[in-house]
Amino acid sequence: MKTALFPGSFDPIHNGHVDIVIRATSLFDRIIIGIGNNSSKQYLFPIDKRKRWIENIFKSFPSVSVQEYQGLTVDFCRKVQASFIVRGLRNGTDFQFERSIAQMNQSMDSAIETLFLPCKPELSAISSTIIRDIIRHGGSISLFVPDGIG
Amino acid sequence: MKTALFPGSFDPIHNGHVDIVIRATSLFDRIIIGIGNNSSKQYLFPIDKRKRWIENIFKSFPSVSVQEYQGLTVDFCRKVQASFIVRGLRNGTDFQFERSIAQMNQSMDSAIETLFLPCKPELSAISSTIIRDIIRHGGSISLFVPDGIG
Amino acid sequence: MKTALFPGSFDPIHNGHVDIVIRATSLFDRIIIGIGNNSSKQYLFPIDKRKRWIENIFKSFPSVSVQEYQGLTVDFCRKVQASFIVRGLRNGTDFQFERSIAQMNQSMDSAIETLFLPCKPELSAISSTIIRDIIRHGGSISLFVPDGIG
Amino acid sequence: MKTALFPGSFDPIHNGHVDIVIRATSLFDRIIIGIGNNSSKQYLFPIDKRKRWIENIFKSFPSVSVQEYQGLTVDFCRKVQASFIVRGLRNGTDFQFERSIAQMNQSMDSAIETLFLPCKPELSAISSTIIRDIIRHGGSISLFVPDGIG
Amino acid sequence: MKTALFPGSFDPIHNGHVDIVIRATSLFDRIIIGIGNNSSKQYLFPIDKRKRWIENIFKSFPSVSVQEYQGLTVDFCRKVQASFIVRGLRNGTDFQFERSIAQMNQSMDSAIETLFLPCKPELSAISSTIIRDIIRHGGSISLFVPDGIG
Amino acid sequence: MKTALFPGSFDPIHNGHVDIVIRATSLFDRIIIGIGNNSSKQYLFPIDKRKRWIENIFKSFPSVSVQEYQGLTVDFCRKVQASFIVRGLRNGTDFQFERSIAQMNQSMDSAIETLFLPCKPELSAISSTIIRDIIRHGGSISLFVPDGIG
Repeated sequence: MKTALFPGSFDPIHNGHVDIVIRATSLFDRIIIGIGNNSSKQYLFPIDKRKRWIENIFKSFPSVSVQEYQGLTVDFCRKVQASFIVRGLRNGTDFQFERSIAQMNQSMDSAIETLFLPCKPELSAISSTIIRDIIRHGGSISLFVPDGIG
Repeated sequence: MKTALFPGSFDPIHNGHVDIVIRATSLFDRIIIGIGNNSSKQYLFPIDKRKRWIENIFKSFPSVSVQEYQGLTVDFCRKVQASFIVRGLRNGTDFQFERSIAQMNQSMDSAIETLFLPCKPELSAISSTIIRDIIRHGGSISLFVPDGIG
Repeated sequence: MKTALFPGSFDPIHNGHVDIVIRATSLFDRIIIGIGNNSSKQYLFPIDKRKRWIENIFKSFPSVSVQEYQGLTVDFCRKVQASFIVRGLRNGTDFQFERSIAQMNQSMDSAIETLFLPCKPELSAISSTIIRDIIRHGGSISLFVPDGIG
Repeated sequence: MKTALFPGSFDPIHNGHVDIVIRATSLFDRIIIGIGNNSSKQYLFPIDKRKRWIENIFKSFPSVSVQEYQGLTVDFCRKVQASFIVRGLRNGTDFQFERSIAQMNQSMDSAIETLFLPCKPELSAISSTIIRDIIRHGGSISLFVPDGIG
Repeated sequence: MKTALFPGSFDPIHNGHVDIVIRATSLFDRIIIGIGNNSSKQYLFPIDKRKRWIENIFKSFPSVSVQEYQGLTVDFCRKVQASFIVRGLRNGTDFQFERSIAQMNQSMDSAIETLFLPCKPELSAISSTIIRDIIRHGGSISLFVPDGIG
Repeated sequence: MKTALFPGSFDPIHNGHVDIVIRATSLFDRIIIGIGNNSSKQYLFPIDKRKRWIENIFKSFPSVSVQEYQGLTVDFCRKVQASFIVRGLRNGTDFQFERSIAQMNQSMDSAIETLFLPCKPELSAISSTIIRDIIRHGGSISLFVPDGIG
């Protein structure tokens, strides 16, 4: 059984994330969306809300599930028996950052492979950072996130 | 009448900003320098000082004015009837970031176009972040900002 | 009167080019699409065809015209009294290349300013090089170029 | 059955290619190494040699096979029923180029997904271009290619 | 006597730093590892620990010494009579950032030259930021730092 | 004695090259400008002219000399006992390319170190490719090259 982890903060999840997960379902038997919860980090939305939103979005996708995790991503991979990490790439700056993370993860556990999917062009500008910024400035984020979020 | 917004924090304004605005005056009938004021952000210089500096620098440029704004940049564009946003580009990392912002803004209001001017090479290393760093370390910033700032 | 040059080989013109020109019409009184004709370069399509296609596409845009030119782009700018060069940017690699050209042009004539428009995300993968490649492999380019081209 | 195409010129195949294919075997039931043969292109090694080398390298990998193809990559994907294209990424410049190709391919056939694997750091400098250059200058390429090549 | 400064926070020093310093010893008569200490910044490790670690690592390198400094890097260069600043480059994003700093430093003191060494590929993913992240998540950093650190 | 090689085609040498060599003289006892001569490549200027120009430019720099070479750069380094290769970096695309070459060279001879100097901003747009292009279009290159070239 091929299991992949799609890790992130998902503060909040947006259309770019959703697209990557759906496209990845054709590749994997099981996809776990792992919400990394870092006690030293400030989130805009509480973990429960972030988790419930994701569960709702993917409730019709039996191979997709959500879990919260703490600690290292590679440790969580081993715990859930995921041999693959999936990440979307928006641009070249993204790639340089993600490659370092992938390389460090592979140093820590050579059995874990990171795969990249290029974001769809019309979704490649969306980031949770920009979305939180729009929320703080009182704008509408409905174009960038699934229904019911925010 | 062609109106452009040149948005930023201008904490403080520097020679790179000034060059972009002056070059943009040949393109637009009216340029509004919009000082985004974000209550959750810490600034080194108070908004009044940042605004007064800019007013002084451009007092001989009748088409250039300064305004403070809160909220989304696209909302402010509509308020001041600016159809264009002007941004300087220093390097490839800049471009990847600015393109996302431009694309998000166009999603929110398709009538607003973002234009990029390449920074002059001899000014392309200057950033407000580095200038604030020099100030904190007790260095002189006179090479990088117009007279009277800092 | 604000005149801009949009220079290129246009071998052939594609939807990405067309979008940049149309968006630029809101900024300039006159846009000249300049087909650089370099005797040492091999083109897939003859200059007459490339020119006729562009004329057809923009026949309902009175401010847009087409001209062939040889020699330096800055010399042609002076000849047609264009103070601006307009270029689309697809990605960070593009930017690094285009910035060098813009900087060299400004060294040769400081009165000529280069403006960049970010390509629309859904058009940012299209290039004449890839289109010629599709043609050589017998594929259809109709998704990427205006009607009647190829 | 999940089938992936790993397309390229393989002029010649090198250790970076081999690593990507082997890592991809854990993801796919079948991997077809597709040698694109472009009549207008000059190759250093004849197609028969390039093909035989690859067959030898992967003879102990039952899920890996080699085929020559002409025409568009998406057409060849349909012919061999591959829903995935796999590519290695060496650096940010690579990504910007590969993303355009992936996006064009998806425009031509939305059922075809491109996946990227980051090259192992110690292999990320190797390219067929540099290898051909070393050969032309009389150097040894044995560090960069499997035994028996060159 | 050729003296170079290798500036940084070293919070903590890692194998990538160590490799750059050792490679630089073949170029310079004296290398000063300068620990920039910024009162407004939060460090994971106290300055004394950071300094002692570095002293231990390089105790068998007579040309390498460690000093703490505050204030501008160019001022510290003048104080210790270093005409060169040495920096490692991991990737293109790094370069764009480091070039700006180098350019600003040269504006402030034209006698100070910045040299870049490319990080070894197998070390190019390591950063102090990622290492601190691993520590916070309870992981082992022993692969990425010299013995005795963390 | 510290010897560095500054390799290139120098077709023709330009102000960007000259600046790097002069700045490198403060670091090395001997700098050899190596003109790589590749029989399969077409040059605009014959090797004798390229060599004579460089000799003239650096005739007052006793530590700088010029040699033509064929074959691999690392082989030439060994022949002239150069332990260092010096290269200028103009932008991030440059860096990604140069890093691969440096890494391949170090694989072939681990004793050879490549150093990068960032080009001065006002010289960072100049390339021999653009200069040859200006020449072909009948433009003047006097701004970009030392006196007497072209």
